[in-house]
Amino acid sequence: MKKITFIALFLSLWNLSTFAQDQNEEALFIRGIYDKALTQGRCYPWLQHLTKNIGNRISGSTSAAKAVEWTAQMLDTLGLDSVWLQPCMVPHWERGGKEEAHLIASKSMKNASLNVLALGGSGAGKVRAEVIEVKSLDEVDKLGEAGIKGKIVFFNRPMDPTQIGVFSAYGGAVDQRVAGPARAAKYGAVAAIVRSMTTRIDDFPHTGTTAFNDVEPIPAVAVSTRHAEMLSKLIQSEGSVKVFIKTNCRKLPDAPSHNVIGEIRGSRFPDEYIVVGGHLDSWDVGEGAHDDGTGCVQSMDVLNVLKRTGYRPQRSIRCVLFMNEENGLAGGKKYAEEAERKKEKHLCAIESDSGGHTPRGLSFDGEEGVFVPAFRNISAWSELLEPYGLVLKKGGGGSDISPLKKQKVMLCGLNADSQRYFDYHHTANDTFEAVNQRELELGVAAMASLIYLLDKNGLSNQ
Amino acid sequence: MKKITFIALFLSLWNLSTFAQDQNEEALFIRGIYDKALTQGRCYPWLQHLTKNIGNRISGSTSAAKAVEWTAQMLDTLGLDSVWLQPCMVPHWERGGKEEAHLIASKSMKNASLNVLALGGSGAGKVRAEVIEVKSLDEVDKLGEAGIKGKIVFFNRPMDPTQIGVFSAYGGAVDQRVAGPARAAKYGAVAAIVRSMTTRIDDFPHTGTTAFNDVEPIPAVAVSTRHAEMLSKLIQSEGSVKVFIKTNCRKLPDAPSHNVIGEIRGSRFPDEYIVVGGHLDSWDVGEGAHDDGTGCVQSMDVLNVLKRTGYRPQRSIRCVLFMNEENGLAGGKKYAEEAERKKEKHLCAIESDSGGHTPRGLSFDGEEGVFVPAFRNISAWSELLEPYGLVLKKGGGGSDISPLKKQKVMLCGLNADSQRYFDYHHTANDTFEAVNQRELELGVAAMASLIYLLDKNGLSNQ
Repeated sequence: MKKITFIALFLSLWNLSTFAQDQNEEALFIRGIYDKALTQGRCYPWLQHLTKNIGNRISGSTSAAKAVEWTAQMLDTLGLDSVWLQPCMVPHWERGGKEEAHLIASKSMKNASLNVLALGGSGAGKVRAEVIEVKSLDEVDKLGEAGIKGKIVFFNRPMDPTQIGVFSAYGGAVDQRVAGPARAAKYGAVAAIVRSMTTRIDDFPHTGTTAFNDVEPIPAVAVSTRHAEMLSKLIQSEGSVKVFIKTNCRKLPDAPSHNVIGEIRGSRFPDEYIVVGGHLDSWDVGEGAHDDGTGCVQSMDVLNVLKRTGYRPQRSIRCVLFMNEENGLAGGKKYAEEAERKKEKHLCAIESDSGGHTPRGLSFDGEEGVFVPAFRNISAWSELLEPYGLVLKKGGGGSDISPLKKQKVMLCGLNADSQRYFDYHHTANDTFEAVNQRELELGVAAMASLIYLLDKNGLSNQ
Repeated sequence: MKKITFIALFLSLWNLSTFAQDQNEEALFIRGIYDKALTQGRCYPWLQHLTKNIGNRISGSTSAAKAVEWTAQMLDTLGLDSVWLQPCMVPHWERGGKEEAHLIASKSMKNASLNVLALGGSGAGKVRAEVIEVKSLDEVDKLGEAGIKGKIVFFNRPMDPTQIGVFSAYGGAVDQRVAGPARAAKYGAVAAIVRSMTTRIDDFPHTGTTAFNDVEPIPAVAVSTRHAEMLSKLIQSEGSVKVFIKTNCRKLPDAPSHNVIGEIRGSRFPDEYIVVGGHLDSWDVGEGAHDDGTGCVQSMDVLNVLKRTGYRPQRSIRCVLFMNEENGLAGGKKYAEEAERKKEKHLCAIESDSGGHTPRGLSFDGEEGVFVPAFRNISAWSELLEPYGLVLKKGGGGSDISPLKKQKVMLCGLNADSQRYFDYHHTANDTFEAVNQRELELGVAAMASLIYLLDKNGLSNQ
């Protein structure tokens, strides 16, 4: 064997053995992260306090302010290098008194009341009008003013139950809620009713944002799927159905609020950041448990768990609890704006906002040129995360971190099992009791493991 | 190019394209199975009836008999080729009146009652005695008669929360429940208390089988984990704690019962069988929803869904609802015995008995010589099932089908997400409300897809 070949062989074997040793060390460390998360995690009692003692917390509300204060206090107990509040102005919409809706003078069902919830952004008003059912925004355009004016438009296209991931089914139906009422208002509708975003047939109306932009807001409510089915059948059988709707919503001036940030300073590259976060605001019904109390307490617990392993990160790790994801994204925008202003180099931002169910994987997103080399790096870690049931793939990161995308940050979303999520999403049903402790803790461990790998190995995206 | 090379090339390209075409056809068919399961499945309303109208159904009980009758009726509505009852004799144990346990004369907590449930197989009795805490059966052996006689032995080794799959944690702790009381009785213990099998700290005692075999049964109860923790702390702080236990159990003569079987006759190989099943009996608390109402209604729905796709199987497909998994396995043994007697050639038996949560994969088991070639076949289908989040691996099949193993049958277990399972297992908490419709239906589709692939392609295990 030639000497040079021999040396090359030796070096490549040495490399291989170093690689194997690294992999083994990493596997052991990740195992340790899971052990800590499953035995010394704090996310579950934190979630209990956030949901039961503070409750739901729409942007601008007193409870949102309490959530800011209390989560900062909790982060302060972890021995981090710094914890601070990042000010931002948030929209302030209020539901007002409870909304009402009932049938008027239907032949078969006089005055039956409908399970409705005003959509976030709905206008206030009291209307009595005929209901016209549509399945899409296009249909509204086709009906035009002649078909719509003076009527209540009822958007009733169900989420597609054959989608395996329920977020895809949501994505395929939610245009009705977000843009439907404004489209109807444009043609003179007096109110809008939107079928709730869930594949279940049940009695819970699901609120959520609706955007009027430059159109004058009209009353816009979500109706439970059971009542959506009933209403549709009535229209079919009776030809014409009238409904009474009353909403009491009001839009107040923008209010001051905050993102909550906790940081472990990096030992070697303190000016490189890895972010993990969720959003602290919720809708004003239920307890904001799965959306997104779970993402917040998981992100906080990631720092707790990393601390408890004794790991000293090379890069700065930040937990960011974003304000106002639900109706404005003010917190997410502010965080990105400040990061840009301070020229902070963010390696990766991870968001947990798909509920607190069993994690099924992590999905990654980034600008062209960022994504490809970064995902190549990340894919090499598949083997380390596969024993924990995690699949790494291309996909969405999360709303709050999305404004960071153009700063060449790799974005990542924790993918929780989606099957139950829309049983709770934006309803009175989204409570602490719907969250399982182990499922929640596994999400913490998944994100902490990714952060460990990112911090240890870096990422070729900059 | 030589003619022969050209022909070889042509043939191999043709093979490749046939393979791709087959794969494509199979992918489309599986997609169709999922569509049907998620839109025309009957498992969820069936489960509602089984749990709410029939309720829990321990072997030998009136409700078990009702469950036999009703499930056979439901199978009869599917247009199968035959539906019949397979007789078997089952053990008949009864809890009797509600058991009791409370502290006696503890310094700090006088007469506090303990949340207990007699274990299946427990003896009857009324005892007052000192409690001695142990963490293992070995510890009982070491203490021997001198340390045990006249006492109540308290098995208190928790399930290991760091196991990612909760069934592994169960497997590592359940020896205390199954064999602990008999071991204690052997050394003269007057009763046994076993920490409930769950990683949660809550108030639900979890029953389950305990085996006395040739030892005279003593009162044996499960205690809720919260009370197990309390009892342990009391023993530590007070040195000696006395407890009163009363159980009212009785063992009646074996009773006649049945497995329920429905069959679609194979068009081409009617004498080759593929089985899908769950167990119809449950413990006598709660509603037997996740254990194993879900496995039963899923197995029934597999036949429904295959029927609705219009698929005409080559081989005979059987749904088998086994009786008496919980305390004897009489149904599983009888089915295997009859299969052997009739020389029925079983290709594969699939069991769903890990709860009705989101399916995470399928695990396979078989005798040496059967497993290796069969699993090689099956592994080739990974790509077809991976889009549905299913991982194929080596692992347990299920108790009811296990007696078929020695007949060279490939065994398969549906692996449901395990994180929540032991929140409900063998408790009053195992009710219909704990089951999610989509999660249940995805299990149906997973098993129906596997059966389709097995039927279409056969299996090299015979």
